Parts: sequence; C-alpha cells; structure tokens
Amino acid sequence: MNEVVPSLPEVDHQRVVFSDGLMLDCGVTITPLTVAYRTYGTLNAARSNAVLVCHALTGDQYLAETQPLTGKPGWWEKVVGPGLPIDTDRFFVICANVLGGCMGSSGPREEMTDAEGRGLGRPWGIDFPSITIRDMVRAQKRLVEHLGIERLLAVVGGSMGGMQALQWAATYPEAVFACAPIATAAHHSAQNIAFHEVGRAAIHADPDWCGGAYWKEGRLPAQGLSVARMVAHITYLSESALTRKFGRRLQGAKALTFLEDVFAVESYLRHQGSTFIRRFDANSYLTITRAMDYFDLAADHGGDLSLAFQGTPTRFFVASFSSDWLFPTAESRAVTRALNRAAARVSFVELNSDKGHDAFLLDEPEFHAALGGFLRGAADAVGV
Amino acid sequence: MNEVVPSLPEVDHQRVVFSDGLMLDCGVTITPLTVAYRTYGTLNAARSNAVLVCHALTGDQYLAETQPLTGKPGWWEKVVGPGLPIDTDRFFVICANVLGGCMGSSGPREEMTDAEGRGLGRPWGIDFPSITIRDMVRAQKRLVEHLGIERLLAVVGGSMGGMQALQWAATYPEAVFACAPIATAAHHSAQNIAFHEVGRAAIHADPDWCGGAYWKEGRLPAQGLSVARMVAHITYLSESALTRKFGRRLQGAKALTFLEDVFAVESYLRHQGSTFIRRFDANSYLTITRAMDYFDLAADHGGDLSLAFQGTPTRFFVASFSSDWLFPTAESRAVTRALNRAAARVSFVELNSDKGHDAFLLDEPEFHAALGGFLRGAADAVGV
Repeated sequence: MNEVVPSLPEVDHQRVVFSDGLMLDCGVTITPLTVAYRTYGTLNAARSNAVLVCHALTGDQYLAETQPLTGKPGWWEKVVGPGLPIDTDRFFVICANVLGGCMGSSGPREEMTDAEGRGLGRPWGIDFPSITIRDMVRAQKRLVEHLGIERLLAVVGGSMGGMQALQWAATYPEAVFACAPIATAAHHSAQNIAFHEVGRAAIHADPDWCGGAYWKEGRLPAQGLSVARMVAHITYLSESALTRKFGRRLQGAKALTFLEDVFAVESYLRHQGSTFIRRFDANSYLTITRAMDYFDLAADHGGDLSLAFQGTPTRFFVASFSSDWLFPTAESRAVTRALNRAAARVSFVELNSDKGHDAFLLDEPEFHAALGGFLRGAADAVGV
Repeated sequence: MNEVVPSLPEVDHQRVVFSDGLMLDCGVTITPLTVAYRTYGTLNAARSNAVLVCHALTGDQYLAETQPLTGKPGWWEKVVGPGLPIDTDRFFVICANVLGGCMGSSGPREEMTDAEGRGLGRPWGIDFPSITIRDMVRAQKRLVEHLGIERLLAVVGGSMGGMQALQWAATYPEAVFACAPIATAAHHSAQNIAFHEVGRAAIHADPDWCGGAYWKEGRLPAQGLSVARMVAHITYLSESALTRKFGRRLQGAKALTFLEDVFAVESYLRHQGSTFIRRFDANSYLTITRAMDYFDLAADHGGDLSLAFQGTPTRFFVASFSSDWLFPTAESRAVTRALNRAAARVSFVELNSDKGHDAFLLDEPEFHAALGGFLRGAADAVGV
C-alpha cells in the first residue's frame, strides 16, 4: 500500500453548467452548479420515454459504457442497453454524477467558486458544503429540465440511488410516472452510520489527508481511503457469499504455516481497497457518506413516511435481496407499508440471492425480469 | 484523536515464569514462557474445584476485580463472585492473560529473549512469533499444572475464550471435566477474517505504527488501533441494539443543521476507539486477531469436527445468543452436532437477546442461570 498514487486523472466529462447555481439544504448556494451526465438511447418526440438512473455511493454516470478511469465496463451494463431491462431501444436513459461526486459534477474535486461564481483557482476540498440526498435530486431536476423533460417515465436506483429515487417521488411527484427504489431504505440506520463513521475515521487518520487539503500538498490519503473501502465492501457482501467465494482458503499456499499466510478473503479485500483509490476522491467519499447518513424521509414529514407520498400519482416497484444486511428486506417492507398507507400503487418483491447488497449490481435474472416488466408496464401505460 | 497518548503504563502483574519455555505451532520456542494470571476463591484439598475462565480478544485476567489500567470493574464481575454463576464460594477460579496478550504474559510488549532465554533489552514487538489458539491453551496448561491441578472442573469462555475452551477439550480431554464454549465457533469465518483484516490494515496504515517498532520511536499507532476497535465494536453489537441505544439521535443537538452534526452512534464509537488505545497494545492486537483467524478445529482433524472429540469424557454446555451475527447460532449448532456425532454429553441453548455478540459480557439472567446450573451439575457430579 506504500506505492506512489498519482492524483486522479482529469477526464473531459460531458457537463451542463447552470450559472444561477443551486441553493442547498445547509443554506449555502453553489454557483455555478455543474452536472456531469451521460445519456443512452433517443428521446422521443413526446419527450415521454426518459428514464433517470441514480447511482450509488461510489457509482458514476458511466453506467452502460467503459468507465474512463478504470477502463472497465459500466456498472449496469447488464441492465441498461438494447433489449435489456432498461431498454435503450425504447427508453432515453439519463444518468448524472451526483452532486458532491468526483466524476465531473460540482463536488470537492471541482474548482471552488465565490458567491458570484468566480473561480478561486483551487478545488473545494473539505470546504465543499454539506449536502443531502435532496440536494442531489434538486441538481438532477435541473438537468432533466435542461433536457426538456417535464415528466420522467421512471426514476430507478439501487442503494443510495434508491434513496434518490424515493426523494424524487416525494419532492417531484408530478415529474415521476414510475419509481423503482431497489435495495434501499427511507433512512440510514444506526449500524450503517456506524460503518460509514469507521471509513471516515480511517480517512481522517491518514496523515496524507492533510486535514482535507491533500490537493494542496500533492498527496492522496490512499491508505485511509483504502481501509474505508475495505470495511464498506464487507457490508456489500453476505457472509454466505464470502464463505462460498473464499471460505478459509489461503492465497498462494495449501496449508497454514503460521508464518506469512494470507487468506484469500484478505487478498481480495486489499485489492478492493487499492483499486478504489485510483477512481475515487477521499473528500467526495466524506461528503457523500455524510449525505446518506443525513437521509431520513420520514423525519422530513413529521415522522410518518406515508406523508411523504400522500396522494402520489407515481407507481412504485420496491425490491430487496434476501441476503442484503446493509439494506435488509425489513427496510423495503417499511417503505412498501408507508406507500400502502398513502394509497400509492406499489408492488414489492424480495428476491432470493446469497450475494448480499451487491446483488443489485450483479447477474440476477429474476430481478432483471421483474424490473424490466415494471418498466414495460409503465411504458405501455404512458403509450411509449 | 490527535491528543498525545503515553505508552501503556507498566503494571506489576502476578506471573509465573517457566524457564524451559514453550514450543509453538510455528516451530519457534519462546524461552522463558511467562503467564500472568489471577485466581479467585480457594482450591479445595482434592484440587477438584478449579474453573478456568478463558478471556476474549481484548479481555484480560482481571475478570472479577478492578482492571488496573482502566480502574473499571472486571469484565465478568456479574458472573464470577460469591453466590454468582461461577461461584467463588465453591470454585477456585483461574484466569490467565493469553499468550500474545499485553497484560503480563509473553507477548509483543514483553522483553524479547534469545533461544537461551537471555533478555535482549527490547520488547518483542512485531518479532513476536505467530501463535495459535492451541499455543494459548498449551501455555494455560502449564499454569494449571503449576497450580497442582490435574483435572479442571470446568473450562469456560466466550468468543475467543470459547475457542480456547473447545481447544482445551480437544487437546486435553482427561483434564477437562466440563466445558462451556459460549458465543463462539470451531473456526473463524471468511467474514470474521475480513473484519479482522480491516482492523489490521488500519494499524498498518498508521505511520506511528512504524512497521511495528513504535516502541523504539516512543510512539503509539493510536489512530489505527482506534479505527480497528471501532469496526470490531460494530460487530460486537446487533443492528437492533444500535437502533435501540442510539437510533438516529444526534449528539448535543436536536435537529440536523447539516453543518457540524454528529450522530450519537458516531460519538459512542469514537469513544470506544479512544479509550481502547489506553489499555491495549497494537502488536498484541495483530498477533491475537491472527491467532483467531488461524483457528479451525475441524481442519486440524481431517475436516471432521467430531473427530476432535471422539470418545471424549468431557460434558459440554454450548450457548449462543440470537442476535449475535459475529458468532451466529448456526456456528454453535455445528459444534453441538459434531459433539453429538462424537457421542459426547452436550446441552445446547440459544438465548434470546437483542444485544448481539456482547451479550455474553452483559446482564443476561437466563444465560447466567443456565451457565450456573451447568456448573452446579458438574460440581455435584464430581462431589465438590
């Protein structure tokens, strides 16, 4: 882990800049607001076939094409494409880098600006203001309007993307015909906050973090960010998946020698940590995990989640995975119950999988069939 | 977390020194072997009333008296004492600091010695050899013999203490009349190894660890050790206990301001981290977590756990806690099934508790009653 890590390469992302900026929940206005995004498929003449996909904590807008930093396939190439569940032959798919992210949208890595939008010649770094899931959704709404779309056919997202989908339906019900929150919850639990705090503590403890000013010192808190990724990655998998994939196998040895033995699961985790630092920014990680921790849709509505959706015209598809212990099925049931209380049109499915939280990113045919069916039904209803 | 942390204070522990040393599983002989220990109650004339309690990863020998570094009550004062489940009016209770520990037994903090047992004027540090749970048990066996005890009435332990209890029964069946492995498993799972590896990575990443030679530099890897404790601590609790104790409450504020907000669960975790560094040694943490990871009693017996206990004369009491996800009930069931296959006398109970793995340390009357009953039954059978 002591190798030299260069700063993240610059990428010429596709962006739109809103010079009037965005007022955040914390009271600060970011001027201008920049949103980096990608689209797939073609917007129809009625502008009625747009599907917004919201990405998770460490995701990005490159959901169905090569990720420019890693050179790896997009994170949802199994789901988004011609003939796939989110069918780009039929739908116009939009995905934006979240506010606070590190792939081109306004965030800690972008140039800091003053209240008049003048560049200050340095990145925001740790001075980037606190943001919320609602702020992320507000920024996406600006993009959607910019693209000339009044109502989205659907908003779809897993994990933190599901939080955004729920927030979209709560904040802009008339702009969301269908909503698919997947492997998510209407609030972040105490345990989830605790795991995030471990990751943040590891970043804060890295002397190369430099109190957030590593950009100034030409350093990167690689080891702290790596530890943060390692602990998070455990929560993305299930115990049974870890046992199935690794068990107690040793890396490069057949029997314990009690000397330099390394278990395969350790080697895998270290690899996860060391590759993550080549594609993610530590201050973005701090900013976005914080936004997730803040998320509590019921609290925003007097403690009753159903009030977030009262009289909603949106139809919902709620999905969870049986072995997901980060966003367990009980959380999806709670969302479904609240939607039922709000007399919303909602279907809920718990999908059997031993792959844990990560299942929403993996090859899960039953999930893909259910999501595809929901979207086809919505498209048929709208006449797309 | 940037406060100055002194090195751990020296304590004049009660110890026994075996000048002939101990040959370890890794092939190295530690000379001499030092075992620090405490006893409670009185050994009877027949030397038949001795109960050995084995402590967990970060426990110590001060189970029923004030811990000398923290000034806090012993970790099992609710269980060990006059009239308590491990009744010191009836039993002679022994507890030894594990080999590799940092409370006086041979371990990374103690003076390094050469093959002839000559002190080298520096601590072992990272040069302390790899140890196993079996090595810990071998060291305890020397202590028990030193105390003139041929057969223990019982060996009792939770978590890593339960691993030692199982190893005792497997290695020295004639020396263990009764065995109570609690909240434990016969091997460390892939997920548990993964969590340990996160803690070790955090320690390794701390520049104050100095490649293990922090003792030489007058430094302590306080931040790395603190992060290791934080992540471990989450695994000791259940999600429901975290929700019940902290939920989404804020520390020192009533409503989110999105500025300097800290959730109560974060404040609690940070406190756990910052107090731990005042009582535990980082190199000991590395050594002992490794020993736990190595533990696999079935693998030591050709893959069949029942072969570890074939023909055993020992009676067993296996206990798990319903909300323990670090050592889930399934692991205790597997131990019980193996004991049944070995035709051992065994009772198993899953105790209802929402307190997670830590329940074995807490006020759990049903557990205390069951353990007390098991020990009384054993004592009656032996005629103590």
